[in-house]
Amino acid sequence: MLLYGYYRSSAAYRVRIALNLKGLQAEHRFRHLRRGEQRSVDYLPTNPQGLVPALVLEDGTALTQSLAIVEYLDETHPTPRLMPADPVQRARVRAFAQAIACEIHAVQNLKILSRLRALGHDDATVNAWAHDTIAEGLAACEALIAQESGPFCFGARPTLADLALVPQLYNARRFNVVTTAMPRLLAAEAASLAMPAFSEAAPERQPDAE
Amino acid sequence: MLLYGYYRSSAAYRVRIALNLKGLQAEHRFRHLRRGEQRSVDYLPTNPQGLVPALVLEDGTALTQSLAIVEYLDETHPTPRLMPADPVQRARVRAFAQAIACEIHAVQNLKILSRLRALGHDDATVNAWAHDTIAEGLAACEALIAQESGPFCFGARPTLADLALVPQLYNARRFNVVTTAMPRLLAAEAASLAMPAFSEAAPERQPDAE
Repeated sequence: MLLYGYYRSSAAYRVRIALNLKGLQAEHRFRHLRRGEQRSVDYLPTNPQGLVPALVLEDGTALTQSLAIVEYLDETHPTPRLMPADPVQRARVRAFAQAIACEIHAVQNLKILSRLRALGHDDATVNAWAHDTIAEGLAACEALIAQESGPFCFGARPTLADLALVPQLYNARRFNVVTTAMPRLLAAEAASLAMPAFSEAAPERQPDAE
Repeated sequence: MLLYGYYRSSAAYRVRIALNLKGLQAEHRFRHLRRGEQRSVDYLPTNPQGLVPALVLEDGTALTQSLAIVEYLDETHPTPRLMPADPVQRARVRAFAQAIACEIHAVQNLKILSRLRALGHDDATVNAWAHDTIAEGLAACEALIAQESGPFCFGARPTLADLALVPQLYNARRFNVVTTAMPRLLAAEAASLAMPAFSEAAPERQPDAE
């Protein structure tokens, strides 16, 4: 397998964690987002969205969208399971991950912040947009798992929810979001980062880190 | 079951189609998005994100995030199947739906456009933001299914991908996006809207339509 990523991409970070948890090897290639390499003509056939990650399988099939890639890896390499067996819990895990992927990350990623700059906004306004998006979004995520047992988002083992949460909390700190009112999220993050599969997937540990 | 929705919400529209395809009845309640009813204190316990849809099950469990709700309905009421059996095709269907939910809809929905207005942008700038987001995103979606057989996004029957596509094309027209270079998307839409399950879920057919 071949994974196209970028060290600071939250979405690529999710897939790196999944590969590590399942003990899967992939060749890593990098597309430098700030240089626009994800929109190069040689890469667009792999991911027409011009985004990372993309996971290219042995037969050449390219899979896109990090949450879909993680579920594919979970279905084809089921040990350890990243999705609960119960349909209601599966739905809640997916909803938590989608709340991060759709309403937080997609609204505060590099592409959106670049569009805001192109509209003439200064650093303060752009950073406030990212900060507010993350702060409001994570507060809702805290509420979504308030009744779940820990230490992970949904119980005693990591799920897709934790794979989405850890990269988003990394982003939260880049934008100085105060997380003290999010004890469940912080507990899930601490339990996750105690596992090498998570800590070794961190942006600063990647070969393309700057 | 109880579905909280809004006639023009793309995300609620996806769930309405799924309920119709599976012949499931739900009591419909409405949260008027332009009046902010989705952020009322009586609703936030149901969906801490302050968004529609939310599907409340018979035991009171509230499910959120439309794609997670549709997969839940598909797992618990498997006829007709909305997800392919093959893991690679499942991943491609999920990726297509997430490309719409994350990179298009989440970036051009009412909430984001309201934030742009609050930053001082006029109608022309706000509408251009929505237009460009949809046009670029749907062009990528066209490429994602270019090699798939039709008439639906992924083959001879509707999947989660079509449930995401039809509401997004509805939005595309609201923002005057030219779709003539998207023949596969238009074919999938036509095949979908020929089915009462899709056409009866349309915004203008809902009791809260204005």
